[in-house]
Order: sequence, then C-alpha cells, then structure tokens
Amino acid sequence: MAQFVDVRAMVTWAADRGPEEIIASMIDYLEEDFRRWEAFDKTPRVASHTRFGVIELMPTSTEDEYGFKYVNGHPSNPARGYQTVTAFGVLADVHNGYPTFLAEMTVLTALRTAATSAMVAKHLARPDSKVLALIGAGTQSEFQALAFRRVLGISSFRVWDTDTAATEKFVRNLAANGVEIVVTDSAAECVEGADIITTCTADKTNATILTADLIRAGVHINAIGGDCPGKTELEPEILGLGDVFVEYTPQTRIEGEIQQVAPDFPVTEFWEVLLGRRPGRTSPEQITVFDSVGFAVEDFSALRYVRDMVAGTDFAEEIDLIAAPEDPKDLYGLVAAAAPARL
Amino acid sequence: MAQFVDVRAMVTWAADRGPEEIIASMIDYLEEDFRRWEAFDKTPRVASHTRFGVIELMPTSTEDEYGFKYVNGHPSNPARGYQTVTAFGVLADVHNGYPTFLAEMTVLTALRTAATSAMVAKHLARPDSKVLALIGAGTQSEFQALAFRRVLGISSFRVWDTDTAATEKFVRNLAANGVEIVVTDSAAECVEGADIITTCTADKTNATILTADLIRAGVHINAIGGDCPGKTELEPEILGLGDVFVEYTPQTRIEGEIQQVAPDFPVTEFWEVLLGRRPGRTSPEQITVFDSVGFAVEDFSALRYVRDMVAGTDFAEEIDLIAAPEDPKDLYGLVAAAAPARL
Repeated sequence: MAQFVDVRAMVTWAADRGPEEIIASMIDYLEEDFRRWEAFDKTPRVASHTRFGVIELMPTSTEDEYGFKYVNGHPSNPARGYQTVTAFGVLADVHNGYPTFLAEMTVLTALRTAATSAMVAKHLARPDSKVLALIGAGTQSEFQALAFRRVLGISSFRVWDTDTAATEKFVRNLAANGVEIVVTDSAAECVEGADIITTCTADKTNATILTADLIRAGVHINAIGGDCPGKTELEPEILGLGDVFVEYTPQTRIEGEIQQVAPDFPVTEFWEVLLGRRPGRTSPEQITVFDSVGFAVEDFSALRYVRDMVAGTDFAEEIDLIAAPEDPKDLYGLVAAAAPARL
Repeated sequence: MAQFVDVRAMVTWAADRGPEEIIASMIDYLEEDFRRWEAFDKTPRVASHTRFGVIELMPTSTEDEYGFKYVNGHPSNPARGYQTVTAFGVLADVHNGYPTFLAEMTVLTALRTAATSAMVAKHLARPDSKVLALIGAGTQSEFQALAFRRVLGISSFRVWDTDTAATEKFVRNLAANGVEIVVTDSAAECVEGADIITTCTADKTNATILTADLIRAGVHINAIGGDCPGKTELEPEILGLGDVFVEYTPQTRIEGEIQQVAPDFPVTEFWEVLLGRRPGRTSPEQITVFDSVGFAVEDFSALRYVRDMVAGTDFAEEIDLIAAPEDPKDLYGLVAAAAPARL
C-alpha cells in the first residue's frame, strides 16, 4: 500500500503547521537535495502543449528514490473559475519500482515554489534587504510574501497587479498575517526602493512586466512567472545587467527568461553556488537574477518533506494503487480469485 | 473531484466482466484510437534507468484529452516477491488541465497488452491460424492465451518456460477456463506446428529466445518481451525473414527488437495497415513480426475504456486530488480558511 495525502489533508496540515513554518523547514530538504545535485537523474520536463495550455510531467531520481509531478499551466483558467496551475506527485522506490507516496501538489507546489525562491534569495540577495516588490498578486503571491518575511526578514512589501480583485485578495490575506502592503499603480511605482523584485504573473505570452530602466544597482530579481516557451516577463536587456542564476540549464534554456537571449548566454546553476564552486553575489552593487522555472528536484524535495512530516499521522491514508498477488507471476490468479464469489 | 479505480475495484470489475470479454471490447477502443493515430501528440516514453530496473512515464494526448501511465520494469522483482511490472494511469481534460480519472494499471496493462496483441494478430496472422506457441509463462501469458482464443479462435496452445512453477501456474489457470495446453521442453519443441508465436519473457538482457531456423513460412510472431534498450528476445536474423510491424517507430527503434538492426531497417506502423494505407499480410507464406513494446496510445485507449465502463458504478469512487478554491486565484485562502477551526 502507498501513502496518500489528499487535498483536504494537505490543506489541513498546511493550516495546522503554518505556511511560513513549512516553507522555512522545507528549505532544509531543498538545500540537502541541491547539495547532492549531481546524484540526480535529470531531464527537462516533458511538456504537452495545446491551444489551451500545457500539461507537464517532471520526473527525477536518485539511486534510491524516484519522484515525478504532474502539473498543468492554463493561464485562461481563472477567467473560467479554474486554477491556472494544479498538480499532484508521486514518490517511488527505485529498488522495486513500486510507488510509495501520492500527494496533491497544487498547495504543495505553491509552498515549494516560495521555499525555492526564498532559499535562492537567502544566498543571492543583499543580506540587508528589507523591501520586496511583488509584480503579480495571484495564487503564488501570499506564499512568496510569507516566505520572504520568514526566511529573509523582509519587513516592507509593495505590490502591483492589473487585476484589482487579486490585489485586494492579496492585501486581505496578508493583513490577517500582520503584513502591511503598499499597493501601487504600476510596475515602475512598485519597484521603487525595492531590494528584491519578484515577478509572478501568469500570461502565456512574451510580456514585458519589468523593463531594464527600472532596475537599480544591488537588486535581486526573483523571476518566477516566465516558465514556458513563449512565456517570459523580463525585458531581455535586464539579463545583461548582472548575473543570471538558474536551476537546471537545459530546461531553463527552453522555458526561462533566457529563451530570449543566445543559447550560450552565460548562467550559473544555483547548486554550484550552494556548494561554493561558483560565486553568487560578489558585491552590494551587483544585480542578481534568479531565472526560475521550477525543476523536478524541487518537487522531489517537497514530496520527501511532506512524506516525512505526515508519516504516522492522520494526514496520511493508505491507497490501494498497486496490485499485490501472492505469487508475483500470477496476476491472472488475482482476477480469477475474485470471480467465484460473484458468480 | 476525479474518479478513481483502485486495485480492488479493478480486480473485481475484471472478474465480474471476465478478462476475455474485456479484451474483446477494449479492442474497439484501441482500433478507434489507432485509426486516429495522426491526431495524437506522440513522444517516446521517458525512461529512468537504474541498476535495478526502469521506471517510465508514457504521456500522449489528443486535442481534448490527455493521458499518461506510470510503469516500472524490474526483471529481478519476482525472485524477491514483487511483480516485474506495476502501473497506474491518469486521464486529464486538456481544456483546463485537470485530472479526471486515476486508475491502477497493473491489471489493466496486462489486459491492454493482450488486447493489442490480439488486435494486431487479427490483421496480420493467417486467418486460418489455430495453434499458438507461447514462450514465457509469466504474468502476461494467461491474458495472451485468452485473448487469442476469443479474438482469433485459437484452439491449440503450446508453452515453454524455464520456470516450471510458472508453467504449472499457467496450465492450472487456463485449465479452469477450459483451455488445454501442451507443455514443451524447449523453444524448438514449443513452436512446432505453431501458426502464431508469442514471446513474452522478462529477462532484461539481449536473450535469444527464438532463432531463425525455427521459423516456418506463414508464421506470425508476436514479440512483446523485448521492450527496453538492451532487452530483446529474437535472433536478429528473424527480422529479415519477413515484414516487421511496430506501434510508434521512434520508440521501437530505442526499445524493440529492431534495436538490433540498422536504424533505417524498414518497418510499417500498424495504424497504416488498419487504415489501408500500407499492406499487412499479403500471402499465406509471408512471415509477419509484430515488434511490440507497448505505446502510450494503448494505455490511453485502455483508460478511456475502463472510465466509460465503470462510470456511475460502485467500481469508481471519487478522489480528492485537485484543490478547488472558490476564487481560483486565492489558493492561500484555502489554507487560511482551514486554520481557525484547529487553533
């Protein structure tokens, strides 16, 4: 039997534990996995593009454990009452190939994306960063704000979104957490005085959410909304202002902001910074860009983390996903044995 | 909410309906999908190879529906009490990216593999075929025998396996279905007088289960055990004796028997035969080889079939896999709303 964390269990667990606490401790799992980056079997995710959106499978594995996530991206979904991104994920035992753990990952992806952003910013943003500008007040925004407050000690928040209802929702949700937000009327106003800029919009186009003239020295840009071929947020000139950091280069070349520049545009993979093999931030004036698209290893870390946290609690239930005949070669017998009682 | 068919439900449904009946009617779904082959988004499956075995994801989609299967292949599993192959699969709505259906597929894969073999043999084997030789008496063998009895009217069965316990299991299971089997002592003896030869062994090596000198004119070879790089069953000379038919050429070049021959070795995709675009069997003397590796479209058909058959019955239950906040941009609110009741 595999363990299963359904939506109700994930939501209740996240509320019980608190998103900020989860994000902070999930970073330990993320850093553990980024430090053993070379031990992972890595591949760009497998995307199925349609005129409505994209459905992706994101597998990765170590010598002992395998994981994958199913995730969709449908920017037109909210207008029809659906979420842009939904997801679920699985862990499996590499030794026998059996799935061991299944979990909803819509909520979990929101937590892991915020945790990844905060982990990277902790190493790349100026240590004295106090002001976070958020462009985009959608699904990911609250998780980002809480992550940066908890992990980097951000105390001042600014937001800009074309959707005023989304902005109001964001302000309301954060106010309940004792976070005050300055609502602005443009991207330019939003990033005034910001130490860190997070772009998290969902348009599936080459949008220019942020232009180079708005970027001042020393800023860390956390670009998470551009994550698909043809879906970017930054004016390409921004990429030349400083140093660009990525998760897994082959996937980011396809999906990230750097799809707008030459295929040999220099980037640094974050795990190299974490291991001290490549420099991260080298001066207070340096502009750093995390061109984040979301990589399978992050989902693997998030799944491992939840699996360990809910083990033995009521948040996990058993799911009957894998047939287990007494004689492993007698699968037919399993079917035959079920027949007489019904005839 | 998505619909879910767990192992118990799948086994009970298969027993209730009967494997032969399921295989026969699943072929209608398979043929429907093979006929619209060009409408599918196709890619070779994504395999994660380890020293223990392989874990694969097999996605495909039409303009309306997406499906994928998770499946492992661990030839050393039975010796440790586990099955060689286990699987589960998912259907999703391409329009919003939401999963709609989750099912165990260990049992279902056994049924769809047998259904695919029978569908292809119905078009490629001699219409007067009466004798089936099965090399390999493992998990797939009973499903193959029942499929060929039902769909092609095979009346005489011969088997050979190095594992006598597996052979005894096969004989016992088939006897309960009124099928008598001739147990033989070698591959050579097994294929004597056979009109159709099915090879379904599980060794993850370039084994030579069948040699060219054993192949008589007019035989149809249903080669289903060679389905991984480095895992083949046929002496390569056999491929030159007649015409080779495949599911999806790019995947079969990687995984099938034809990995043993030149990358431009001529093959025919089965859907072309089904649509009358390419010849299948053209004479009673012709030797035909179905170099089957199992392709995502077959799992898509099998999932569609089960989904339609169990809709509204007790065999399907609801599973809480996708978070559905009232405001699709307010995922955080879903977590926040769960908090007060527990504080």
